[in-house]
Amino acid sequence: MNVTVRGKSRHFRTVSFDAERNAVLLIEQRLLPHKFAIVASHNFRETAAAIHDMVVRGAGAIGATAAYGLAQGVRAFQGRDLKKFSAHNETVYRTLKAARPTAVDPVNAMDQVRAAMRRGETIEEQQALALAAAEEFANQDVHHCQQIGQHGAKLIRNGSTVLTHCNAGWLAFVDVGSATAPMYAALAEGKKFHVYCDETRPRSQGATLTAWELAQQKISHQIITDNAAGHLMQRGKIDLVIVGSDRTLGRTGEVANKIGTYTKAGLAARHGIPFYVAIPLSTIDWNLKSGFDIPIEERNESEVLGAWGAHHASRITHHASRTYVRVANPTSGALNPGFDVTPAELITGIITPAGIFKPRELWAQRSKLGGPH
Amino acid sequence: MNVTVRGKSRHFRTVSFDAERNAVLLIEQRLLPHKFAIVASHNFRETAAAIHDMVVRGAGAIGATAAYGLAQGVRAFQGRDLKKFSAHNETVYRTLKAARPTAVDPVNAMDQVRAAMRRGETIEEQQALALAAAEEFANQDVHHCQQIGQHGAKLIRNGSTVLTHCNAGWLAFVDVGSATAPMYAALAEGKKFHVYCDETRPRSQGATLTAWELAQQKISHQIITDNAAGHLMQRGKIDLVIVGSDRTLGRTGEVANKIGTYTKAGLAARHGIPFYVAIPLSTIDWNLKSGFDIPIEERNESEVLGAWGAHHASRITHHASRTYVRVANPTSGALNPGFDVTPAELITGIITPAGIFKPRELWAQRSKLGGPH
Repeated sequence: MNVTVRGKSRHFRTVSFDAERNAVLLIEQRLLPHKFAIVASHNFRETAAAIHDMVVRGAGAIGATAAYGLAQGVRAFQGRDLKKFSAHNETVYRTLKAARPTAVDPVNAMDQVRAAMRRGETIEEQQALALAAAEEFANQDVHHCQQIGQHGAKLIRNGSTVLTHCNAGWLAFVDVGSATAPMYAALAEGKKFHVYCDETRPRSQGATLTAWELAQQKISHQIITDNAAGHLMQRGKIDLVIVGSDRTLGRTGEVANKIGTYTKAGLAARHGIPFYVAIPLSTIDWNLKSGFDIPIEERNESEVLGAWGAHHASRITHHASRTYVRVANPTSGALNPGFDVTPAELITGIITPAGIFKPRELWAQRSKLGGPH
Repeated sequence: MNVTVRGKSRHFRTVSFDAERNAVLLIEQRLLPHKFAIVASHNFRETAAAIHDMVVRGAGAIGATAAYGLAQGVRAFQGRDLKKFSAHNETVYRTLKAARPTAVDPVNAMDQVRAAMRRGETIEEQQALALAAAEEFANQDVHHCQQIGQHGAKLIRNGSTVLTHCNAGWLAFVDVGSATAPMYAALAEGKKFHVYCDETRPRSQGATLTAWELAQQKISHQIITDNAAGHLMQRGKIDLVIVGSDRTLGRTGEVANKIGTYTKAGLAARHGIPFYVAIPLSTIDWNLKSGFDIPIEERNESEVLGAWGAHHASRITHHASRTYVRVANPTSGALNPGFDVTPAELITGIITPAGIFKPRELWAQRSKLGGPH
């Protein structure tokens, strides 16, 4: 998407590749929203570290980063020995996979790159195929998000107010995003609308990343606490909810997403407000038979007990750095579930690149959605 | 309640009076949870400033502080001229009333003190009656909270898990608290239970004040984000919800309380979890006919855009001070409604000093609840 840097608006992807320098270029997301910077990773170990250290986060974005990181490592090999080349590639693959061991997107993305490489015979051919496959993976991610935008934009009317939770924006993908895609498409169609961003404690991705994204596109928006959405719905101030998903069960239509999503879905149902989930196909899990089987990660309690922020609010400087403050009582602990599961009956529709479906239709429509035969 | 200070457990009230020094003694709540300190206010202007600057907050606590502040001002008068005494008292009253102009508790409390003073003839008699009436107001507040505790303790079983929102604890009253009263009474009965404290953004009174209170009483508890309660309810981890109220409509049973309360009530109803509101009689509004007529204060957006905390988490020092960090995107704004309204149908019962009632029974029971004839 376009970002205004030193007064000029330029297009950036979250993840891209500089073939000449054999470098992966990443938006340094840990500095956002206080500073916008692109960092270059010059070898696959640096790229793995960038995934591990959360320079880049979000399913689509880390998938593409791993795909580029694999191509980067493969391309760095010098020599003629195919066996050594193969061993080297295995090391690259394993290093990138280990950077975020529970994520599936990096593995799926790298498997696509490896499959493409098998079509080459020489080292040079395989190196070229690796990069082409990584580029294709990234472009595919963008294309799918654009399709989500085309389908979802119909839901946003002129004058609508839209609630979103956490960040399922372009920063979580290569570009465009999932939950934000309908907003960007509606903006391109000339519609005016207002977005409420749940701040999304404990990590505040709504207040930091989503708000930053919307501000860059000059979309009217306000940050609200996670407590406030119920009141706004009760007073008729929210027309539509669009969120993303970390895992969507193809068999049941249940959606695992950032903690607090379920709460918003329940409130929306109570008030008859449409609640949509925007997903790329890669987040559909065709195997699990119940949302109760989705493991819910319990994250570190320090996230709940404090907050990360900047001391100098309105100045975005090159030295902007975030500092942690302890908010809570020093002698108390916290419980920090990272995700929750929203049942199908609370979801109006699932916005996919292939169209909008009722959550319980996913299984019947699985041939369109990359599901099993 | 008891507080452990330098290894020793001692009983404190949130507000008390030192007759010898003619001083109002207050827990300095702005330093909590990082530091516990009692501050003395030596004249009525200092007491008004303490109310204004939120050294003390909470309906019952500021009521008692104003009552003591009026007695303090009245007692400071020197001279024999009854007219001058009366004019002085009027200044004291107005100064204290202006400290928190929208609050009703200070006015009600001071009116009780003034009514008592009318029974005296000499200046000395009136001064003595003022202090006695202020003490009675404070003792009454404690007594009512204790009665709430006796009624509400029956709801907490051995092994129960209880959710609470914001701080309706003893720090908001003279002692014991409203939503916390059943917990303290159940503790005294030897019951074991676990409390989840919603952190209660944006001002985090759950993470700071309620968690501090429970830690002092050694009640098992954990802080959760406001996003997490829905997930915990879905997984069967919450047996009971008890919250306080800023205003309860005697005619409809609707409850205005801290933003986010309505959300928790809706979730509890969805899961069949009992949802109780604990209130002193002074918060019942017998006039308003609809919750939609309750004005919802919109507070400063800076509360949503950042957080207050301490840099050195686990050290409680004499110099502990809190610092503000900007969490949100610097170019985004926020909407910050301070309260919401929970409809009667989501409330299992209202715990009052006179017993537990269905929300729609309040009007019929108004003679027991200090309502109109």
